[in-house]
Amino acid sequence: MTFSLTVLGSNSALPTSERYPTAQILNVSERFFLIDCGEGVQMQLRKCRINFSKINHIYISHLHGDHCFGLIGLISTLSLLGRRGVLHIYAHEELEKIMAPQLEFFCADLSYSIQYHHLNFENKEIIYDDKRVIVESFPLSHRVPTCGFLFREKPKEPNVRKEAIFKYGLSIREIVAIKNRQPFFDEKGRQVPFDELVIEPPRPRSYAFCSDTKYFRRIIPHIEGVNVLYHEATFMHELKALAKSSGHTTAHQAAKIARDAQVGKLLMGHFSNRYKDLKPLLAEAQAVFRKSELVQDGTVYEIE
Amino acid sequence: MTFSLTVLGSNSALPTSERYPTAQILNVSERFFLIDCGEGVQMQLRKCRINFSKINHIYISHLHGDHCFGLIGLISTLSLLGRRGVLHIYAHEELEKIMAPQLEFFCADLSYSIQYHHLNFENKEIIYDDKRVIVESFPLSHRVPTCGFLFREKPKEPNVRKEAIFKYGLSIREIVAIKNRQPFFDEKGRQVPFDELVIEPPRPRSYAFCSDTKYFRRIIPHIEGVNVLYHEATFMHELKALAKSSGHTTAHQAAKIARDAQVGKLLMGHFSNRYKDLKPLLAEAQAVFRKSELVQDGTVYEIE
Repeated sequence: MTFSLTVLGSNSALPTSERYPTAQILNVSERFFLIDCGEGVQMQLRKCRINFSKINHIYISHLHGDHCFGLIGLISTLSLLGRRGVLHIYAHEELEKIMAPQLEFFCADLSYSIQYHHLNFENKEIIYDDKRVIVESFPLSHRVPTCGFLFREKPKEPNVRKEAIFKYGLSIREIVAIKNRQPFFDEKGRQVPFDELVIEPPRPRSYAFCSDTKYFRRIIPHIEGVNVLYHEATFMHELKALAKSSGHTTAHQAAKIARDAQVGKLLMGHFSNRYKDLKPLLAEAQAVFRKSELVQDGTVYEIE
Repeated sequence: MTFSLTVLGSNSALPTSERYPTAQILNVSERFFLIDCGEGVQMQLRKCRINFSKINHIYISHLHGDHCFGLIGLISTLSLLGRRGVLHIYAHEELEKIMAPQLEFFCADLSYSIQYHHLNFENKEIIYDDKRVIVESFPLSHRVPTCGFLFREKPKEPNVRKEAIFKYGLSIREIVAIKNRQPFFDEKGRQVPFDELVIEPPRPRSYAFCSDTKYFRRIIPHIEGVNVLYHEATFMHELKALAKSSGHTTAHQAAKIARDAQVGKLLMGHFSNRYKDLKPLLAEAQAVFRKSELVQDGTVYEIE
């Protein structure tokens, strides 16, 4: 089952020719979740050959332009492509007010409807839930209300072993009960060990997105043990005062969060334009947490 | 003296990975005029290594999203870069109303001011004039009010030949008079031929931008004899009915305009996404007007 992240844009507010403003696509079993929507998203989606029609949910972490200026172009293009299904946008409630006059003027004949969902910036909240995936938002700490997002696969049922079905002559009802992890007793009344009965499914995978935020340890319980954490790393640690005052994180701090939350891997982005060479940011993070990486626009990261 | 066009975006409403929505930069003696501002302009400017601070004038042909969705990102970035000088935006008066709430929300602390100039969609009008260049707008015919733009270098003064200064012992006052093309008489009272006195400057160059528009012959007097004409060519001529109903032009029609206006060269853009191969559009145009070209994003066209 697919669980992969495509980075569409990874720079801070000032884009470069190689790094667009923040946007990512998370593909969970062919559900394409768009996380933030910086300017140029639709061109980046084209470059990455992502089917526009598969995007039904857009999560906007906060209302700074580098995280949402690509919305109007994408919305307009989806209509030109004849979209019919509802587009769900999760954001601060102000977004709806800001978009309304633009939509009225530029997209008066939109081919589909938009449903806005207002994020909760105080507490963790489940914002999407289907049979395969749960999406939760949780508060970050930036200059304006900002949410992080956590995407978790749902646990799958175990597969009952063919040899167990044969050996114990299991009925359909017994198989369903075993899949639901109910104890099974053989004809002598002994409980059969569970691993003799089933093949366990792969462990559910998870991905957390944290940008923009200052160093904010209160996120740790929310992201604990995720397979992959994307965390902003705007500055080197020597600029930690600037990071704090501007509501951003240093590479060192991002790695500390990753280490203390015991995540599988840290992906860093949202780099300040002052750094022409990003290797020092990587080194700074890896000194704290070895499995740190700098993301690249256009790269697909498999979450394993 | 520089007179060159950089194409930043050249597609119609649906951008591709290789063609962004409409935007161009015309460099006239280091004045950088931005013509239309489709999404992604700021990234394209970076790729083309154009200095953002040199852009003081933006001309928006009409208020369809693919010609102006890049404005808010560019305006925001110019402020992050600390711009001080006034930014002049020439557009339909509605633009100011559409931008106001976005600017208020996203750019409350803009480091510079914006001056809007309302275009005249009824008649040709001079909209900018300095010692080097004149910019005029003129009406096109599209689904919404739309202007074309004409950029003309001003004629330069001739240089008085050194040998003439020596031969006739010209005073400063006489030299100024000759530069102003006043007749000069030698000591015997004979008028000296002008080409014996001066070296003529290069002929002033000109560039016209016509997009979006249906086939509209009334533009011909405005663009007559320009060195380079950019004209939209959205469709092949077999779709001329669609071109007309959607307010666009076919490649054949664009070439007829170029031929009948006796321009030096035709640059075509704004191609419909249905054409994966654009060579047939080029062939169709060249059958009518040999000096037709398809523009490419990121290419610089010297106007000679």
